[in-house]
Amino acid sequence: MKYYIGVELGVRNIIVGVVDKYGKMLRKEAVPTLKDRGYSEIIKDIVQLALKVTEEEDIDFKSIKYFGVGCPGIPNKHEGTIVRNYILGFVNTPIRAELQKHINLPVYVENDANCAALAESVAGAAEDIDFSVTIKLGVGIGGGIIINNKIYSGFNFAGAELGHMVIAHEGELCTCGRRGCWEAYASATALVNQTKKAAYENPESLINIIVNNDLDKINELTAFEAAKQGDKVGKLVVQKYIEYLVEGIVNIMNIFMPEVIILSGELSKLGDNLIKPLTELAHKKVYSKEVRLPSIKVAETGSAAIVIGAAMLGRYMDR
Amino acid sequence: MKYYIGVELGVRNIIVGVVDKYGKMLRKEAVPTLKDRGYSEIIKDIVQLALKVTEEEDIDFKSIKYFGVGCPGIPNKHEGTIVRNYILGFVNTPIRAELQKHINLPVYVENDANCAALAESVAGAAEDIDFSVTIKLGVGIGGGIIINNKIYSGFNFAGAELGHMVIAHEGELCTCGRRGCWEAYASATALVNQTKKAAYENPESLINIIVNNDLDKINELTAFEAAKQGDKVGKLVVQKYIEYLVEGIVNIMNIFMPEVIILSGELSKLGDNLIKPLTELAHKKVYSKEVRLPSIKVAETGSAAIVIGAAMLGRYMDR
Repeated sequence: MKYYIGVELGVRNIIVGVVDKYGKMLRKEAVPTLKDRGYSEIIKDIVQLALKVTEEEDIDFKSIKYFGVGCPGIPNKHEGTIVRNYILGFVNTPIRAELQKHINLPVYVENDANCAALAESVAGAAEDIDFSVTIKLGVGIGGGIIINNKIYSGFNFAGAELGHMVIAHEGELCTCGRRGCWEAYASATALVNQTKKAAYENPESLINIIVNNDLDKINELTAFEAAKQGDKVGKLVVQKYIEYLVEGIVNIMNIFMPEVIILSGELSKLGDNLIKPLTELAHKKVYSKEVRLPSIKVAETGSAAIVIGAAMLGRYMDR
Repeated sequence: MKYYIGVELGVRNIIVGVVDKYGKMLRKEAVPTLKDRGYSEIIKDIVQLALKVTEEEDIDFKSIKYFGVGCPGIPNKHEGTIVRNYILGFVNTPIRAELQKHINLPVYVENDANCAALAESVAGAAEDIDFSVTIKLGVGIGGGIIINNKIYSGFNFAGAELGHMVIAHEGELCTCGRRGCWEAYASATALVNQTKKAAYENPESLINIIVNNDLDKINELTAFEAAKQGDKVGKLVVQKYIEYLVEGIVNIMNIFMPEVIILSGELSKLGDNLIKPLTELAHKKVYSKEVRLPSIKVAETGSAAIVIGAAMLGRYMDR
């Protein structure tokens, strides 16, 4: 039996896990990233954690087949580098070469959102489905595209930036400098801002009571909570947010027609309360209605997604 | 040497061509579609034309390897049918089965815009390029996506509807019923309407002189013509149109990062006068700038695109 090491190299934490060939996480360990110390120290920690999780699982390190690293930023998959990630301070950072100073294994480097999409494809909501798109509603909107069970990210590995699809010409300013990007309307951050604005403008709204009149306590679930309790303002915020979300989702359907679109992030915890109205509106607005349409599902691999996807990179090689 | 038959089954004309393995059109013949007569008569004409072009080229029909049909609408590629095309009156129309009553060959059925994209990939502006997206700026915006040299159209074959990507939330009403679709802003039809409106509102504009004050003579090149001659109104129309076009093109870059984006249709005849400002603005607005970026090119297979692409379907099987 072969095993696989997956690494989530995040801004705050490094998580290393050992995964079986079905994409099942057997054990994981984490340490703080401490990003300012530079990549070679970070890589040393990754190697230590990899040795630790295999030892703890009683797995001979010789039975590890592939090593995969998921990291924010644009990877160069041929070179095994991260071309750029501002927050981690990575510029053409040679992840593979540095890891191979310590371990004699094939190393794959991939964008973290793409890893999460692969995890859903291998062991999550898109298991046994060839075409899927996974969308993470978080600070921004991250996307991963799976075509024929493999990650698709374009000729320069920088594609699948679904959050930076403009849905509102000359609309809200996005962090990327363009106006009207989907993530400026439909990320969790955007929803929090929409909720705060509505609460501020409507002091009578239940939203204010839920957060004890402290708008900073509003999170992406607050408006849904208020709506559930019958609050008009909450309902309006939710309705408008679903419209924004559907705008991008229908675009993705019209463009990709994946068999399933998977949502992850805190909002996905709403389950059917989000998925049902979303699906109804999306299927009403999609261009081609005479065919079986994509379903929308909640992600299943949770916080293990990036590690599992990274571990599976070698098995589902993308080029 | 093997040869390939490609068919453009259009609303007005049927064009049948014989194509070599490099995607070179050797000969083609056309007849009017006369769509009201029903598909079985249409298929008979297709067979007749196929026999005619091979005979005229002195090609033994036995050396024909594959037969391909490009048609507007959604195909079912497994069944070889057209699921739906309202204009041709096709509903689950069994193109393959009907053709195989007359000829004993593998028959492929595909959407016409997808065929055009394949033609560019095999023998046009994306030759030797694995990832390309071809966009036809016409009455609407048609799209075709080539991934690893094959047509991508999703699990239900209804994807790649790039014109029906919303770029303007709550914007112009589109023929599909949604508001703000890219084709409502950036198709040739949209540009004609934008030009007419500007000419009507600005009687002093050169646009009116170019068309002898007959707004119905305005076409998609008129504003560019006026702009070239220094007309302020023409320049504004062109500038705004390029902004709309770039909005969708940058979305496509952020999502797909194809190595090349190919434009076809009358507007592509503008060549560098269109491609240069488009590329400059798109590369300024794209999300990831630290990597080699997609180029934008003019289509090369012209009016033969659909026939060539249809003929090549078997060689570049998409599933």
